Amino acid sequence: MTSLAMIEAAAVRLSGHARVTPLLNAPLLDRLAGRRVFVKAECLQWTGSFKFRGGWSALTALSPELRAKGVLAYSSGNHAQGVALAASRLGAPCVIVMPADAPGVKIANTRAYGAEVVLYDRVKDDRDAIGAALAAERGLTLVKPYDDAQVIAGQGTAGLEIARQAAEAGIGGADVLTCCGGGGLTAGIALALETRAQGLRVRPAEPAGFDDTARSLASGRRERNAATTGSICDAIVTPSPGEITFPILQRLCGPGLVVSDEEALRAMVLAFQHLRIVVEPGGAVALAAALFRQDLPGTVICTASGGNVDVAVFRDCLERFGGNPWP
Amino acid sequence: MTSLAMIEAAAVRLSGHARVTPLLNAPLLDRLAGRRVFVKAECLQWTGSFKFRGGWSALTALSPELRAKGVLAYSSGNHAQGVALAASRLGAPCVIVMPADAPGVKIANTRAYGAEVVLYDRVKDDRDAIGAALAAERGLTLVKPYDDAQVIAGQGTAGLEIARQAAEAGIGGADVLTCCGGGGLTAGIALALETRAQGLRVRPAEPAGFDDTARSLASGRRERNAATTGSICDAIVTPSPGEITFPILQRLCGPGLVVSDEEALRAMVLAFQHLRIVVEPGGAVALAAALFRQDLPGTVICTASGGNVDVAVFRDCLERFGGNPWP
Repeated sequence: MTSLAMIEAAAVRLSGHARVTPLLNAPLLDRLAGRRVFVKAECLQWTGSFKFRGGWSALTALSPELRAKGVLAYSSGNHAQGVALAASRLGAPCVIVMPADAPGVKIANTRAYGAEVVLYDRVKDDRDAIGAALAAERGLTLVKPYDDAQVIAGQGTAGLEIARQAAEAGIGGADVLTCCGGGGLTAGIALALETRAQGLRVRPAEPAGFDDTARSLASGRRERNAATTGSICDAIVTPSPGEITFPILQRLCGPGLVVSDEEALRAMVLAFQHLRIVVEPGGAVALAAALFRQDLPGTVICTASGGNVDVAVFRDCLERFGGNPWP
Repeated sequence: MTSLAMIEAAAVRLSGHARVTPLLNAPLLDRLAGRRVFVKAECLQWTGSFKFRGGWSALTALSPELRAKGVLAYSSGNHAQGVALAASRLGAPCVIVMPADAPGVKIANTRAYGAEVVLYDRVKDDRDAIGAALAAERGLTLVKPYDDAQVIAGQGTAGLEIARQAAEAGIGGADVLTCCGGGGLTAGIALALETRAQGLRVRPAEPAGFDDTARSLASGRRERNAATTGSICDAIVTPSPGEITFPILQRLCGPGLVVSDEEALRAMVLAFQHLRIVVEPGGAVALAAALFRQDLPGTVICTASGGNVDVAVFRDCLERFGGNPWP
C-alpha cells in the first residue's frame, strides 16, 4: 500500500533523474476558460510522459539482483517508454509487451530506448497472460503500469511538485484534474495532496465511452468499459480501475469528469497556441475538462500527462480545429 | 551600458512575474545530433517568448510617473506581446507599432493583451519614425526591442538561469547558441555568462540571407542585410546588429552560425517530436544549428526563443518534414 513516506522516498530516488516539470498557465487561456487554468506539463518529462517517474521508482526499488535479471512491462506506449528508458539508464534488460495498434511513435521510441518489443492484438490476446508467461520464462520482474505500489509512489512525486508549485503560485484551493487510465497517476497525486495540499481535491478525467473510473466512483465498485478500443485517447484506455488504485481513488477523489474525443483534440490545439506544448489526446482530457466544463471552481490545475502523438494525428487535429479551437 | 548588476537587479524585479523556463533535453535527440543538446525553452515563457523578460524589466525600471503616461514599442510580434502584457499587468497604457505582414497570431495576441496596435508597411514605412512621432505626440516612453540597456538586462536574466541550470546539469563547458535578431537576448545572455559561467561561450545563430550579425562579427563593423523581408524567421529579421548590443557581441560572442529556412523547419519538427514544445521558425534557428552543424563541441545549449507560430505554418511544417525530419 503506497504511503506518503513511499512517495517521498521515491522523490529522493528520482531527484536528478526525473525532470521537475513546470506548472504552466497563460492569461489568454484563462480568459477563454473563464477561470484560472494551471497545467502540470508532464509532456515535458523524460520520454514525454509522467510514466518515467513510476518506471524509475519501481526499478530503483528492486534489489540489484532482480534488476540485473531484467524487467518486463505491458503498455500501450507511455509506460513502455518510461520503463524502457529507466531500464536502459540502470543497465537492466527490458522486454515490453505492446498492442500492435499503439501509435507508431511510441513503438519506435520504446525500441530506440533499447527495449525488446513484443507486439500483441488488443482484442484477441490477453496482455497479462503474455506478460506473465514471458516473466516466468526469463526470470523478469513484471512492472505493472498502475497496480504497483512503487509505480504509484513514483507518479505521486508529480503530486508533491504540484503541492509545492501551487503554494508558490498562491493557489490555496483548486480542483486537480488528472488524465485517468488505470489510476496510477491519479492515486499517486491524490495521496501526495492528501497531506501536502489539503485545499486541492483530485478529480479524474476520462474520454467518453471509457469512463470506467467515473462510473466506478459513482457506483462504489469497479466497473468495466464495454469496449477495449475505439478512443483516440489510447494512453488512458484501460478495462477498469486498478485493484490497488481504486480504493485510493474512492477515498480521496471524484466525482469523475468525461470529455469527448473532439474536446480532447480542441484542448490539444489550445495547448499548442497558448502554452506552446505538444499534448497527445489521452494527455489532453484533463485540460479539456478544465476548459470546457462549467461546474468547476475558479482555479483548476490539470495534468498534461503525455505528449507522444504521431505527426499525422497532430496535423489532422490542427487541420480540423486550428482555425476555431474554442467550441 | 548593461552590467551584471543590472541583470541581477532585473532578475529581482522579474522574480514571481516571469517564468523560470526549463532547460530541456532528450536522449533520442542527443543520439540523432551526435552530441548533448540542451534547450532553454523560452517558448514556455509568458507570451510565448523571452521578450516578456525585457518588457517587464524596462517597464519596472521606469518612474511611476512615466509608466502612468504609457509606453510604445515597435515589433514584429514577440516584443510587442511581451511589452503589451507587462504594460497590462502594470496598468500602463500601451501602443504597439507592428508590420502589417506580422503573423496573425502575434497581432491578435498583442491586441488581446490590451495594447493599441498600429500597423505599418515593412518595405515602405520607417517604423522608427512612426514610433518616435507617436511617442512625442502622446508622451509615451519608447521601449526599443534591443537597443535599450534595461531590455538587455531583462533578457540577460535568461542567462543567469542558464548558468545555474547548466551547473545543476553538470555542464562545465558548452557553446550557447542564441536565436539572434538585433542582439538583445544574445548580449544579455553573454553578459550574464561572462561572470557566472565562464565555460559557456555564446554564438549567435541566424537565418541565411539575414546573417547581419555573423557578417558583422567577421568584419568588425555593423553590416546590414540586403533585404528586410523574405525569411520565414520573422522574429529575428532585423536590418543590422544594434548600436548598444554589437559592442557586447563583439567582445563576448562568435563566430556566428547560419542555417537555412528548411533547417529551421526541420528543427521545429524535431522539437515537436522529442521535446514536445512548439517553436516558431525564428525561435528554432539555434536548435537547427545545434543539430545540423558539425563544428560544435560535445555539449551545446541553445535557446528556443519563441513559440508564436500560426497554425497553418506549423501544419505545413509537419506536412513537409514530419515524415523524415532529419536531413
